[in-house]
Amino acid sequence: MRIDIITLFPEIALAPLSESIIKRAREAGIAEVKAHQLRDWATGKHRKTDEYLCGGGQGMLLKPEPLFAAIEELRTESSKVILLTPQGQVLKQATVRELSSEDHLILICGHYEGVDHRVITELVDLELSIGDYVLTNGALAAAVLCDSIIRLLPGALGDARSPEDESFSDPNMLEAPAYTKPIEFRGLKVPEVLLSGHHAKIDEWKKAQALQRTRENRPDLLD
Amino acid sequence: MRIDIITLFPEIALAPLSESIIKRAREAGIAEVKAHQLRDWATGKHRKTDEYLCGGGQGMLLKPEPLFAAIEELRTESSKVILLTPQGQVLKQATVRELSSEDHLILICGHYEGVDHRVITELVDLELSIGDYVLTNGALAAAVLCDSIIRLLPGALGDARSPEDESFSDPNMLEAPAYTKPIEFRGLKVPEVLLSGHHAKIDEWKKAQALQRTRENRPDLLD
Repeated sequence: MRIDIITLFPEIALAPLSESIIKRAREAGIAEVKAHQLRDWATGKHRKTDEYLCGGGQGMLLKPEPLFAAIEELRTESSKVILLTPQGQVLKQATVRELSSEDHLILICGHYEGVDHRVITELVDLELSIGDYVLTNGALAAAVLCDSIIRLLPGALGDARSPEDESFSDPNMLEAPAYTKPIEFRGLKVPEVLLSGHHAKIDEWKKAQALQRTRENRPDLLD
Repeated sequence: MRIDIITLFPEIALAPLSESIIKRAREAGIAEVKAHQLRDWATGKHRKTDEYLCGGGQGMLLKPEPLFAAIEELRTESSKVILLTPQGQVLKQATVRELSSEDHLILICGHYEGVDHRVITELVDLELSIGDYVLTNGALAAAVLCDSIIRLLPGALGDARSPEDESFSDPNMLEAPAYTKPIEFRGLKVPEVLLSGHHAKIDEWKKAQALQRTRENRPDLLD
């Protein structure tokens, strides 16, 4: 898979993807990720990328010309163009899974008050938000999206782990509490059932605990 | 505000907070952010931080001892300890706002299959997820949380902008499409009402457009 990120802050998008699992996946050629400086497509003496809003309102908007130029240069027949914006549909694991089968993603990082709406209507296939909160810019959201997608690509997690046997395999249930050694730490013991070797009982305990945890932390999932 | 991040990948958490608005806020002393290597609190020849799960299950879990040691060294009377985990409650702007009034946050970044549950029951005040998707580790989620909080601190966005007059000021409505110059670009024109100077009409248009956009991208907000 190839991912091109268009942003005013290439380092914010790229730095988190340059360590650990994602670094290795990139080095192994599983994913090719590039972050491009939007300003490189801006013209004029000041290479201006932002401009005041028509009709008033505070803040600045990303101008259409540099974004049109950037996307038109980078896209191919098989590209999917995604805008990271708090105005988009909220990212879920199901969408991550869908996107992980694409050949080429172009991620546009919003900044300031967002982007000129003509970019969205003419060029963008999907508006995505990573959650109902506001960030200083979309580059960090792009890093989150890339991390979530790349770890699903075949080989990215190594042979030992399957990405499916974990949180959100059942999207409506959290995982049970998990424990490791030492079996007793400061008087706090690992629940005995987990040490019993009795797999049916362990599964039963895990299911009951998962349900209780979901009720406490994510009652919305049980509705 | 002071934020201490405990992670196996300090660079993933810190790099996105070292540019632009958040960099300036940190340099101005508005927020002091440190990312600590969890391994520094691990003992033994190999400074091991992870261990197999009790009761079976694939993957590794963060052991309790290094996390207890780290949190106990860093916390003060006024600290709030947050674990970033897909098992937590989902972050919303209202929580970001609440957290922005804290003195001291300690963020623990989950990794592998998570952390030993005794850490959660004994030390963690709040389990937070940045969204219903899985990341390679919690350091990126910590960066997202820090970015969202720091930008709300007084002075972080500079004098010209107020963080409240934007998306999620009304958490149940997206923003209207926005346009900037040029007024005509490749035959695509800015909607005339935005150029009319008639503020009441502009407001009316924005409200109708915001509602339509919310219906299209986030029907869940209108329920």
